[in-house]
Amino acid sequence: MTDKNPKKMVHGGDASLEMTLRPVGVIRNRTKEPFLVADHEGIAMQGELDDTVRRVHRADREMSEIVINEDLIDILEGIDEYSHLTVLYWAHQVPEMSRALTRVHPMGRADMPLTGIFGTCSPARPNPVLMTVVRLCGRKGNVLSVTDLDAIDGSPVIDIKPYVRDFFPQENVQIPGWMQKIQRECERSRP
Amino acid sequence: MTDKNPKKMVHGGDASLEMTLRPVGVIRNRTKEPFLVADHEGIAMQGELDDTVRRVHRADREMSEIVINEDLIDILEGIDEYSHLTVLYWAHQVPEMSRALTRVHPMGRADMPLTGIFGTCSPARPNPVLMTVVRLCGRKGNVLSVTDLDAIDGSPVIDIKPYVRDFFPQENVQIPGWMQKIQRECERSRP
Repeated sequence: MTDKNPKKMVHGGDASLEMTLRPVGVIRNRTKEPFLVADHEGIAMQGELDDTVRRVHRADREMSEIVINEDLIDILEGIDEYSHLTVLYWAHQVPEMSRALTRVHPMGRADMPLTGIFGTCSPARPNPVLMTVVRLCGRKGNVLSVTDLDAIDGSPVIDIKPYVRDFFPQENVQIPGWMQKIQRECERSRP
Repeated sequence: MTDKNPKKMVHGGDASLEMTLRPVGVIRNRTKEPFLVADHEGIAMQGELDDTVRRVHRADREMSEIVINEDLIDILEGIDEYSHLTVLYWAHQVPEMSRALTRVHPMGRADMPLTGIFGTCSPARPNPVLMTVVRLCGRKGNVLSVTDLDAIDGSPVIDIKPYVRDFFPQENVQIPGWMQKIQRECERSRP
């Protein structure tokens, strides 16, 4: 795993390391279009803010299926004992060129400050691995039924992990003012 | 992005989709060996349980550096306004063959039930993308100083995301009995 050849070392990392993901399954739901679209210039909301927020809330309540590859079914053994799961998936509709973006206006909104991608939830990122915590409602064999999955139909699944609340910091958590504003707006539009 | 050729469709996913990760940086700290080692048969703890738990607690308190590639420095703009960040990194010391594991005894302990990988925090998984929420203590240019980073020295960084507490479920979260036991043991050994 170690390689002392300095020619292969870039940015302090080992450029020869292969990090190739294999889809372990696919997400199936009724959300066919992303709420945010990305190109080489940035990200943009589809439609108006209020409408987008309502669409997101509606999608959260709807059931999604996570269809795990049948040859991996053993990997789900015991998963039913969790009420919630962390799902990693690939933003497969983000165009390749959008991976080069470094800053965006959060949610594509001009009233939000231009912010480095790592401080935003932009789907366009150098590695478009998106994460969401879902509620597990049931399982039939290799198919999990979940709600609150903020992914579009056909998204390749990368990983599923336990969600254990106490593993996440609960106190003295600070976030930027613009993120607090987005939270307040989402709360207001909740049905 | 869509491809109707059925030969390319496997497991309901599109096998032609390339999901290659590019390291955006590297983790630097004093943890040189993983706490859990993996081979084709499963995972095993290095040393005794109490000692391992103490080592994990000690490592959590120690400062790690996340060195982001210099050409990506704009991607960190505004990140200082967060107290906590979600870090995705690659388990680069997990051997390739361990990606084929589907079930393990959590923490390599025979007293824990054989469990599907997706219900465990095993570093050996089909896609060894590990996740941890860290406390951001400071930034100097492209270098973030953080605590609570459960990664070993040299781990390639895949992504950094905001940590927003309210995005994570807080109520009615259920976990298996064996996971509750691990939590209690970790709590007891906390210095």
